[in-house]
Amino acid sequence: MAPKQVPDIIVGRLPLYLRALELIGGDGETFVSSQELSHRLGISSAQIRKDLSQFGEFGVQGQGYSVQELRAHLRQILRVDREWPVILVGAGHLGSAIASYSGFAQRGFTVCAIFDNDPLKVGREVGGLRVRPMSELTAFIQANHIRLAMIAVPASAAQRVADQLVEAGVRAILNYAPIDLTAPTRVRVENVDPVLHLQHMTYYLAEA
Amino acid sequence: MAPKQVPDIIVGRLPLYLRALELIGGDGETFVSSQELSHRLGISSAQIRKDLSQFGEFGVQGQGYSVQELRAHLRQILRVDREWPVILVGAGHLGSAIASYSGFAQRGFTVCAIFDNDPLKVGREVGGLRVRPMSELTAFIQANHIRLAMIAVPASAAQRVADQLVEAGVRAILNYAPIDLTAPTRVRVENVDPVLHLQHMTYYLAEA
Repeated sequence: MAPKQVPDIIVGRLPLYLRALELIGGDGETFVSSQELSHRLGISSAQIRKDLSQFGEFGVQGQGYSVQELRAHLRQILRVDREWPVILVGAGHLGSAIASYSGFAQRGFTVCAIFDNDPLKVGREVGGLRVRPMSELTAFIQANHIRLAMIAVPASAAQRVADQLVEAGVRAILNYAPIDLTAPTRVRVENVDPVLHLQHMTYYLAEA
Repeated sequence: MAPKQVPDIIVGRLPLYLRALELIGGDGETFVSSQELSHRLGISSAQIRKDLSQFGEFGVQGQGYSVQELRAHLRQILRVDREWPVILVGAGHLGSAIASYSGFAQRGFTVCAIFDNDPLKVGREVGGLRVRPMSELTAFIQANHIRLAMIAVPASAAQRVADQLVEAGVRAILNYAPIDLTAPTRVRVENVDPVLHLQHMTYYLAEA
């Protein structure tokens, strides 16, 4: 199960495949071909078959993949066949939007607590949760065995928050602040930065 | 300049390099080594040197890269040595957070208009902009030569919005809705989906 030697670039595509299968939906009778996945995702069907073959034999000759089965396998491989509690630090505009985002549930994640150091925000309700003070952060993480956190604080505060999260036992951080966080190698950090995507696309835009 | 044959995976890393250089800051006297960039980004220094060499000879033997020069080159290559106007469709929680995000300015982008089809949102002020009705979308795009748009509407409405944007002349879409949009190959689509990042990280998390 989930052999560690699979290249990270392949691991990074599995959530895309899972999302496509969730959007296709369907019951145990429904099959999807690698060509159809390719068309939806803009990834070649050969690449998709090669990626999935790293984890086992999922396709059925002449029929493609069982949507239900492949979905279940991918959830298992990505460990989202369970519900992960995630905490959020930052209850400003962005934090509020994240807390209110309905896309986490049913895809493996529950935002279970929000923290902020602003006394004006602490105690307010955001996305159905009462904002907690930063002084409760470490105890909360340890009492609830939290491994995942999202950072939605200003860039100037993000590294300090990350250090506190790591210290308390968090193992994976999704960072919305536009800076490169430093963390020990045992901790995974991924960045949500819309400007990176925009700059990637402008490369391809001819002069307006 | 910006030869089209550079693999997209390399193009996708250039914004990361640019962001690191912007965070390092510094004037014409400041140099950075590929090792230092490697440490900040978790990308091997050999890879960084190879990526940059696709676009010219930027390094100085024994000194590394001039931060100011490489930054200017990357901005030119990515075409963000100018200000791109971007429109935003969707003025809900997420749209409001995007409109209020201060990270666009100085990195090449200005959110210049927000649209929504909800009469309760139209006319309200969000991030310093008055929300416009969807009926004005096409005319605005054409009058202002808009090429970039962000979609922050519910999944059920996103494809319809994308079709309208493409029809009006938009060439690149940053999609926040958790669905795979279909668009002609001349239009670039990138997705901001925090769950994809979270699922990528849970793969590496041992049982809690």
